[in-house]
Amino acid sequence: MKVIDGGITAVTGFEAAGIEAAVKYQNRKDMAIIYSTVPFKVAGTFTTNVVKAAPVLWDKDIVDNSPFAQAVIVNTGIANAGTGKEGMSYCEQEAKKASELLGIPQNAVLVGSTGVIGKHLPMDRICNGIEKLVVAKNGSIDAGHDAAKAIMTTDTCPKEIAVELELGGKKVVVGGMSKGSGMIHPNMCTMLGYVATDAAISKELLQEALSASVTDTYNMISVDGDTSTNDTCLLMANGLAGNAEITEKNDDYKAFCEALNYVNTFLAKKMAGDGEGATALFETTVYNAATKEEARTLAKSVICSNLTKAAIYGHDANWGRILCALGYSKVKFDPENVDIFVESKAGKIQLCKCGVENDYSEDEATKILSEPEVTVLVDMKMGNETASAWGCDLTYDYVKINADYRS
Amino acid sequence: MKVIDGGITAVTGFEAAGIEAAVKYQNRKDMAIIYSTVPFKVAGTFTTNVVKAAPVLWDKDIVDNSPFAQAVIVNTGIANAGTGKEGMSYCEQEAKKASELLGIPQNAVLVGSTGVIGKHLPMDRICNGIEKLVVAKNGSIDAGHDAAKAIMTTDTCPKEIAVELELGGKKVVVGGMSKGSGMIHPNMCTMLGYVATDAAISKELLQEALSASVTDTYNMISVDGDTSTNDTCLLMANGLAGNAEITEKNDDYKAFCEALNYVNTFLAKKMAGDGEGATALFETTVYNAATKEEARTLAKSVICSNLTKAAIYGHDANWGRILCALGYSKVKFDPENVDIFVESKAGKIQLCKCGVENDYSEDEATKILSEPEVTVLVDMKMGNETASAWGCDLTYDYVKINADYRS
Repeated sequence: MKVIDGGITAVTGFEAAGIEAAVKYQNRKDMAIIYSTVPFKVAGTFTTNVVKAAPVLWDKDIVDNSPFAQAVIVNTGIANAGTGKEGMSYCEQEAKKASELLGIPQNAVLVGSTGVIGKHLPMDRICNGIEKLVVAKNGSIDAGHDAAKAIMTTDTCPKEIAVELELGGKKVVVGGMSKGSGMIHPNMCTMLGYVATDAAISKELLQEALSASVTDTYNMISVDGDTSTNDTCLLMANGLAGNAEITEKNDDYKAFCEALNYVNTFLAKKMAGDGEGATALFETTVYNAATKEEARTLAKSVICSNLTKAAIYGHDANWGRILCALGYSKVKFDPENVDIFVESKAGKIQLCKCGVENDYSEDEATKILSEPEVTVLVDMKMGNETASAWGCDLTYDYVKINADYRS
Repeated sequence: MKVIDGGITAVTGFEAAGIEAAVKYQNRKDMAIIYSTVPFKVAGTFTTNVVKAAPVLWDKDIVDNSPFAQAVIVNTGIANAGTGKEGMSYCEQEAKKASELLGIPQNAVLVGSTGVIGKHLPMDRICNGIEKLVVAKNGSIDAGHDAAKAIMTTDTCPKEIAVELELGGKKVVVGGMSKGSGMIHPNMCTMLGYVATDAAISKELLQEALSASVTDTYNMISVDGDTSTNDTCLLMANGLAGNAEITEKNDDYKAFCEALNYVNTFLAKKMAGDGEGATALFETTVYNAATKEEARTLAKSVICSNLTKAAIYGHDANWGRILCALGYSKVKFDPENVDIFVESKAGKIQLCKCGVENDYSEDEATKILSEPEVTVLVDMKMGNETASAWGCDLTYDYVKINADYRS
């Protein structure tokens, strides 16, 4: 497996575009299309929030009931959540417009929205946008890049990646894009993530591969603890690579899952590190936990702690807050067994040994914590399970961005 | 029942003091004593964090096993948490010193600590402080006020109250004090809360009254979602009011519980409104929920949402974030039944009607949200249960305070 140039359009048969539709803001790309020249199978994971945006319900219906789909239309600016029955009508109008222009069935058109909750979609501008998208779409790397830019909201940079692997002598590509960067605490999925592949694989295994991967990637990041109404991750497979279709959990399936995990981990970490107002990617890896689930819970508790996040912003080796966050995670453990380390490009030191302070240099700790990527390592000494979670620091800018997000 | 002057020393037989012991900082009161001229029964609730500070373990042992206690010694600056076995030795040394000076048994001395986790207590200064406290203690309102100031950390003001009620013709007082104001997300109790009464009441009912009250008061506040290692609430009853001892759940018990709830609600709200960096007390009341527990869960989910807290800081009527926070609380409901209002001294308006935006004036909403006490009202239309939770807005100053708390 190797990383290659581009994102979603690096996958054979996938085209994309990103254009300006003035959904809410002027002079910025705010609508995207993903299109495959042949139909694709699609797997999906969606928010567990009781309040689900209309596009989440629309896409879930297609994932559950349609054998194939062929396009995704996405807008930013307005989330099409808290819009009641009209929200579903907007999805239908979008799908109808795209199906007519693309010559594909209406239930082959997935839709995605992100932005302010409770406002209505301007359907005239959305429909004009779809017309522009259908004309603009193409399979170039630049087109994929435009789409990755168009789905951004408060993100500071587009997030995309593609990897290439070989399955039974055939070249297979997995490529994707995603966006954050507030209301990010995915539960079943990320805010918006779109991953495509040209691998031939059964729909059942496509869904199983996605669900398993999401648990250890998107579901292990948090920017602010707020699980969105719109979280959606779609995995699309059009089979154009020509490999023997994967229909069982053989070596090809394992290789495919490995590539998918690589793509999802990359996109998840990019989202965490580009969290609203963030100055640092803050990783926590818990090892020697009793169970995998406990390792995940402990790691996530640390990256979600506001106090720890503020300390990371201040480059302060406040390990007591880390121990405290482990302690309220609801996992049972003996504090007097816990070791805590911090690590970055600048080095690695132990802050806490068996639950009490280790003898370390505050200057060295500050130097390590001043890097843009910082890792906390926790040794639980209870078993053999490991998990990583990714978050970011809590900064003035997070507050600033969210105190006036709607204006 | 009526509110009277003073705090913990408004209760007959209770004395207090607050002095400068230079535990961590110079030129500020940082040690307090609470003392009763006669032994008191004591009930307690403590943090559910797996990582428990030594004073929590010490006090829990006394609450569980001693019929009476007579004094509490408290320090700020250092939490005596993450201090291993030495931490318990510090508690014992404190209790020994106080017991010798006060002429009471060692297991009649409760201790409390709050501050940085992982640092060791300077026992020479602590013991000098205890000597000064024993000399300074007295029953004046000023002495109670000094103690309330001495237990502050990042609090901007002391928190104390006293109420008077009549039980069987006898005047009974309930008075208390507490402190916040970061790492505040109590689970079984608040950071540090000390409530005294001269009522005569059985130890069993004293504990039952406290546990019930804590559920709807301290456990319904959050500043930052971080459940501390040191949360402790003690309720002390010395029986000096001379009322017939409360040994069953009669009218006297109900009147006592009502007074206790009033005191605890007052102190809990004071802590929430004085959360680190806060500019506003942010209350959420959920009504017409299906069960009391669901009402509590929904209300707490809203006041814990970082995005909603930032919107309150920005005086932004972003009701979508409130609906979203209700939605990820894990309570099942139909979003299309939910009404959301905001209220303050400046008025009350409806933002959301049956899950979609109501027609309201943004200017009026901003005016309402610009007050120092703001309430969100949520009508679930599912049943008859109500609960309130209290938090504060998320501000630049919260980040500032916690980015360099240890320095």
